[in-house]
Amino acid sequence: MSEIGRGVPLAITAAAKRLVDLALEEDLGSAGDVTSECTVGERTPGIADIVAKQDLVVCGVFAAEMTFAAVDANVEFHARAAEGTHVVKGAIVAHLEGPARSILAGERTALNFLQRLSGIACQARSFTQAVGKHKAKILDTRKTTPGWRALEKFAVKCGGAENHRVGLFDGILIKDNHVAAAGGVAKAIQSAKRLAPSLLKIEVEVTTFDQLKEALAEDPDVILLDNFDLDGIKKCVEIARASNKKVLLEVSGGVTLARVPELAATGVDFLSAGALTHSAPAADLSLELSLL
Amino acid sequence: MSEIGRGVPLAITAAAKRLVDLALEEDLGSAGDVTSECTVGERTPGIADIVAKQDLVVCGVFAAEMTFAAVDANVEFHARAAEGTHVVKGAIVAHLEGPARSILAGERTALNFLQRLSGIACQARSFTQAVGKHKAKILDTRKTTPGWRALEKFAVKCGGAENHRVGLFDGILIKDNHVAAAGGVAKAIQSAKRLAPSLLKIEVEVTTFDQLKEALAEDPDVILLDNFDLDGIKKCVEIARASNKKVLLEVSGGVTLARVPELAATGVDFLSAGALTHSAPAADLSLELSLL
Amino acid sequence: MSEIGRGVPLAITAAAKRLVDLALEEDLGSAGDVTSECTVGERTPGIADIVAKQDLVVCGVFAAEMTFAAVDANVEFHARAAEGTHVVKGAIVAHLEGPARSILAGERTALNFLQRLSGIACQARSFTQAVGKHKAKILDTRKTTPGWRALEKFAVKCGGAENHRVGLFDGILIKDNHVAAAGGVAKAIQSAKRLAPSLLKIEVEVTTFDQLKEALAEDPDVILLDNFDLDGIKKCVEIARASNKKVLLEVSGGVTLARVPELAATGVDFLSAGALTHSAPAADLSLELSLL
Amino acid sequence: MSEIGRGVPLAITAAAKRLVDLALEEDLGSAGDVTSECTVGERTPGIADIVAKQDLVVCGVFAAEMTFAAVDANVEFHARAAEGTHVVKGAIVAHLEGPARSILAGERTALNFLQRLSGIACQARSFTQAVGKHKAKILDTRKTTPGWRALEKFAVKCGGAENHRVGLFDGILIKDNHVAAAGGVAKAIQSAKRLAPSLLKIEVEVTTFDQLKEALAEDPDVILLDNFDLDGIKKCVEIARASNKKVLLEVSGGVTLARVPELAATGVDFLSAGALTHSAPAADLSLELSLL
Amino acid sequence: MSEIGRGVPLAITAAAKRLVDLALEEDLGSAGDVTSECTVGERTPGIADIVAKQDLVVCGVFAAEMTFAAVDANVEFHARAAEGTHVVKGAIVAHLEGPARSILAGERTALNFLQRLSGIACQARSFTQAVGKHKAKILDTRKTTPGWRALEKFAVKCGGAENHRVGLFDGILIKDNHVAAAGGVAKAIQSAKRLAPSLLKIEVEVTTFDQLKEALAEDPDVILLDNFDLDGIKKCVEIARASNKKVLLEVSGGVTLARVPELAATGVDFLSAGALTHSAPAADLSLELSLL
Amino acid sequence: MSEIGRGVPLAITAAAKRLVDLALEEDLGSAGDVTSECTVGERTPGIADIVAKQDLVVCGVFAAEMTFAAVDANVEFHARAAEGTHVVKGAIVAHLEGPARSILAGERTALNFLQRLSGIACQARSFTQAVGKHKAKILDTRKTTPGWRALEKFAVKCGGAENHRVGLFDGILIKDNHVAAAGGVAKAIQSAKRLAPSLLKIEVEVTTFDQLKEALAEDPDVILLDNFDLDGIKKCVEIARASNKKVLLEVSGGVTLARVPELAATGVDFLSAGALTHSAPAADLSLELSLL
Repeated sequence: MSEIGRGVPLAITAAAKRLVDLALEEDLGSAGDVTSECTVGERTPGIADIVAKQDLVVCGVFAAEMTFAAVDANVEFHARAAEGTHVVKGAIVAHLEGPARSILAGERTALNFLQRLSGIACQARSFTQAVGKHKAKILDTRKTTPGWRALEKFAVKCGGAENHRVGLFDGILIKDNHVAAAGGVAKAIQSAKRLAPSLLKIEVEVTTFDQLKEALAEDPDVILLDNFDLDGIKKCVEIARASNKKVLLEVSGGVTLARVPELAATGVDFLSAGALTHSAPAADLSLELSLL
Repeated sequence: MSEIGRGVPLAITAAAKRLVDLALEEDLGSAGDVTSECTVGERTPGIADIVAKQDLVVCGVFAAEMTFAAVDANVEFHARAAEGTHVVKGAIVAHLEGPARSILAGERTALNFLQRLSGIACQARSFTQAVGKHKAKILDTRKTTPGWRALEKFAVKCGGAENHRVGLFDGILIKDNHVAAAGGVAKAIQSAKRLAPSLLKIEVEVTTFDQLKEALAEDPDVILLDNFDLDGIKKCVEIARASNKKVLLEVSGGVTLARVPELAATGVDFLSAGALTHSAPAADLSLELSLL
Repeated sequence: MSEIGRGVPLAITAAAKRLVDLALEEDLGSAGDVTSECTVGERTPGIADIVAKQDLVVCGVFAAEMTFAAVDANVEFHARAAEGTHVVKGAIVAHLEGPARSILAGERTALNFLQRLSGIACQARSFTQAVGKHKAKILDTRKTTPGWRALEKFAVKCGGAENHRVGLFDGILIKDNHVAAAGGVAKAIQSAKRLAPSLLKIEVEVTTFDQLKEALAEDPDVILLDNFDLDGIKKCVEIARASNKKVLLEVSGGVTLARVPELAATGVDFLSAGALTHSAPAADLSLELSLL
Repeated sequence: MSEIGRGVPLAITAAAKRLVDLALEEDLGSAGDVTSECTVGERTPGIADIVAKQDLVVCGVFAAEMTFAAVDANVEFHARAAEGTHVVKGAIVAHLEGPARSILAGERTALNFLQRLSGIACQARSFTQAVGKHKAKILDTRKTTPGWRALEKFAVKCGGAENHRVGLFDGILIKDNHVAAAGGVAKAIQSAKRLAPSLLKIEVEVTTFDQLKEALAEDPDVILLDNFDLDGIKKCVEIARASNKKVLLEVSGGVTLARVPELAATGVDFLSAGALTHSAPAADLSLELSLL
Repeated sequence: MSEIGRGVPLAITAAAKRLVDLALEEDLGSAGDVTSECTVGERTPGIADIVAKQDLVVCGVFAAEMTFAAVDANVEFHARAAEGTHVVKGAIVAHLEGPARSILAGERTALNFLQRLSGIACQARSFTQAVGKHKAKILDTRKTTPGWRALEKFAVKCGGAENHRVGLFDGILIKDNHVAAAGGVAKAIQSAKRLAPSLLKIEVEVTTFDQLKEALAEDPDVILLDNFDLDGIKKCVEIARASNKKVLLEVSGGVTLARVPELAATGVDFLSAGALTHSAPAADLSLELSLL
Repeated sequence: MSEIGRGVPLAITAAAKRLVDLALEEDLGSAGDVTSECTVGERTPGIADIVAKQDLVVCGVFAAEMTFAAVDANVEFHARAAEGTHVVKGAIVAHLEGPARSILAGERTALNFLQRLSGIACQARSFTQAVGKHKAKILDTRKTTPGWRALEKFAVKCGGAENHRVGLFDGILIKDNHVAAAGGVAKAIQSAKRLAPSLLKIEVEVTTFDQLKEALAEDPDVILLDNFDLDGIKKCVEIARASNKKVLLEVSGGVTLARVPELAATGVDFLSAGALTHSAPAADLSLELSLL
């Protein structure tokens, strides 16, 4: 692993390794890259650059590096941009040297990682910048691509936003169905306080002012205001403030980039958006090969 | 597997199974769904519907079914819409009965499959409809999410578009780098004709009129016109027609939904777009649970 | 899965499945059970009981069931005691019917699961009962057998104790090394408050009264009193009470069964003991087969 | 692999690798070590010693080394004690240098291997030493932790005891159920002699003097005296001696450390004890980190 | 699993399962059976017979069944011949009903298992029959196809021959290199007697009459006469008889079908032949489909 | 990977890696190489040559190298013959240095790869040479050993023959069952032309002259003449020539080495033979070890 990849935690690289293996398997199959075998000499050497075709926040260079390492240990990979860096169109993100066939065999898979992860990082950056001077933090959700949770959450952080729960295990988030099962907001919070693991905080989702008040009375750590309109959110903030409780407020539902400024201006603590991960357009990068 | 899932080929379900396992592992970890364990009774029964929150082309119901089967064999899953069906907002895509905790544990993963695959199917449908009366077929590319190749290509077909190569192994596609390595378009095609497996056709990418003419002289099966502007494409079509060769033409590069009509009108055979798979926004679906 | 196994969460059964596969592989190898093949007829039917040879808290019946299911789908398995039940010597924990060879092939693996998990559950029960009328909860630690984290933590709960963090991901626990790296207790807590995921509480380990006071000033959720003697713990409790902070206290280090009563009497909230999982003696169970 | 790990056979290291992967997965999950990420700088270097906190027989250093290698290739691991060495309290078992975060991420998993394997090695050593001047060898059993068979049997050898069968495949051991199925001790042995693979010896379990005599008449290689009391064992030894057969005798059932001397004094060849592997208390080791 | 498959031990079916998965993956890839998708209706039902195209010993029906079960749970598979049965040309080995596409997708993989395993069983049967009235048993070797050890050894038994060691773990076989390392035949046997696990017999390979005599003096369980010519073997038999030792003799090296009668006539106990597994020609079977 | 292994594509080495792991697992199990542990010192060094015991076409050296790399990273492996090279009896194929125990542990697995793959390469070479001056190319089939598709197809190429389809995904091959399902040869071809992926050619199997004529009318890319006798094939060639269609002809069914010359003389383009892969006798190689 080059210097660039060193800072990426094991939980992320382990998830990437599984996907690298799946990706090469699905792209090469048991027959391999027949085009290169027909047109490129077995030992033709190549050098290549991975280039940003638009301004972007770099994410996934470590996965590109892992891809080429899996294809052929003889490909040298030199990262030129650290994860999370903002680069301009034309910037070189990585430089490669090695057998041309091996570079071509890994090209698409490496780019597929970079385009998706950098795309999410760009999206996260846009949302974060739209907050402006307000205190609100942008959070992701669990609406991620199956198999990609750790990677997409890493990209969100590269873009400057923060991670909500990583899974069902690192936080108590009481939603409408839990409320219904427990017999009301108050009962659900009480039940969670009694039974939750000792180091997990409790967040509860509310959809009405009455539920908000019921929740505030039970002292949860965070309250999630789900699908309120702007005025509703403003009123929720007032109610919470009036309660004098030390509680954080999160807004979810319809958190689009366009609405971030007005939502952040309400004074809530968190804005969470599934679109960060499930609908970020791919960033544009390409691999440019020269034969020696 | 319910009736719905029966028609999905093994290559697709096998790919889905791997992702279902990864997704449940990343969402449940070794600690599981602590919120439900704190707020929902161990044996509380539930019934639920998966509902389309927008008009959409259904894709991924089989993966949702596999998700719940992996979570708990006691969850009954009844698909209500076949893969590839167009449904309107409010339509019920599947109905579930079983332990409420198990339905909640699988909810997000199941929806994450549906939102992504239906999103791609919708995108494919939009592109296909934009072709209008012209003969051009919409093709996907290999710009897919690592680990998701088979599933995303299946979604493309559900939306009415067609698949280009599935991997590097099921077709010869000579690109710029191969041309350079082989010493020119003609040499590359000749080399491929001599060495390619007997059942693979040969497609060659050209970026200039001269390359197009050089290619036509060698009788490839398909010629890919890469990044020509509209007038360039029209001229390419004329050159190809004038050559009297039985060759198919494909256009790639900048194939956006808005440009599909004018590109299709040029008379080319294929339009290929990476955006079908790498930048399709997620479709909106939700799971609505009732406790019995 | 029989009725008994239904309540065991997926995160637990998934961990068990991996170990069942490893265990059968290591016990049967590629050559199988040669003794039974030499001495027991291929179709000889058998019935068997799994019997407790001592009073014990049952844990692992679901894993025994999974073992026989993996050995041979023709073995019927009927659980006779639910996970977490206390049974007396001689009690039948499960009843089996099926090919004698298959019962013998799975016998040792099934018992190896039961003896370990029931052993831990017994240990947890002893610790819990030793607390008496005090409020202290017994917690496990991360000192578990590699590969067995989820199962051993499940056994702890079956024995009536509670789980501390499941892994490094579901709680902030600042230990001596983190304190050193951050430049002191206060700085470490401040840093964690600023950077921790929003739904994780913060616990900090202290080893001196000064550290305790420094910690209290920063309002962590839990303070871990590590390796204090009894008088030291009592003094810590006083200091914490005097601070008027809403903080929970945990004691770790040398928490043996014999010391639980006096430690619990100090009024702390949690006692954590690695011995629950790493040094619990195996419970005694056997499989008694009758040939039909 | 450092010099220390070189002597460990592939069958052992392969088993350890699987458990290392499972252990890191269960400890780091998809979210990783959040505490260290909040309190320790990404590039803070560390040096650490793994220290024996009691006199012990070292076992598992190779697994600790594999753990850190899996966490981060930048951690240098220097073993300071060979597998099977007896060291005193305070001895340094291994020395590490590398990123502090990586050392902390692997700490618990590495220690969990060492504490369990060294604990078994210590137990084996105690049993072996208790034999004194007698010829009896201490054997383990198949009562091992699922997934840990090869490792625990390796630890037994590190402690100076010997391995009984590794699985169901490397020896014929006719137990009560096989005797019943075959229609008696004599018939079972005859059947095994006729059908067993040519390089496997035959051992038969007996529980009465009559069975012992019946067995002796059939010339098995080893006879297992199961659950006889001390006088019974002595009488069995006499009967066997009187038979003039070249047979080895093994005692099992209730072979506790306290009884080893008297059992060994009876002149039997083997004493086998499940407690070696299933009830050995963990050895005490810790990792002591210094930040540079 | 149908009645036929029930008798096949887990160690065999587990090995088969891994190969079934690999085989379907390599045959279907991520793109699947494109021919059937183009020419056979998605729901066209089919019935099919697997037919012997020559007289043969059936082996591998269980693997064929597992193949179709993996392809599509809707294919019903009815075995018509038990493993190890001798059938004549034209015999129906199995009958299938289900979706035609699924039958076609599994056809080649199922036949590939049957042709290989039945081929080995036929070879084993030929060798066994060539022994005639002599006592010699035909043994296989470890010269098997990587990944296929358990399956090929099962086929050998189906053909009536017997298994030598399954791996390096279930018998001591001292070969020339071990003799050299130990410092001679006698020393090697003594060393093995001292160190070998208690239930493993000891076989030693000799290539000269002197080595044979040296071996006999040490009482091994079996002596392997490697690459002696016919007269040499006869002389070895005499030497062994004259020694009055209870030792078994095995012949290896150049054990072809043609030589089996003369080799068996020498009176040795075992003839081992790598050709049983590594050079058995495939048996001829086909799948005949009818569309309903 | 040494210089020799560098040219082997990832799709091949990835397939080999899986089999290397399976093979070592089945040969070493969880108990390992007990003979070497009893007779060879733990650190005894060795040097060894892998030697051809017959003239042969080398194939599988890369797999042998991977085997020893998996057994012990301290074994140095020096390939002495490139894949596909023809060598004479006595030639050294590879040279090894390292711990003698490790060389012995990997010996059989490495040879098992070499004997099978070189055997197939030899078979392919014999077939290819039998074609003589005719244009016919020798093709393999999908009648390969499950799990070995990519490796066996690689061996075929090393022997100078060519690969037919690698799987069901890289070519349309319409067989009798597809013809039946589609309602005739013409309809099947038309259907495939309409539905097949754009880069796959279409081959159709015919068994009568009428079918041949029906096929020719539809312009497939290749026609497979299945099980015609020699005169039939000659007549087919005439019919095809008379049609003036640009179609290639393949012969399958009964393509034995003896018949290759007469079949090639008919002027067809391809001869395909399952025997290349399913019935090639193993090549003879051995490993000769010297202890230092």
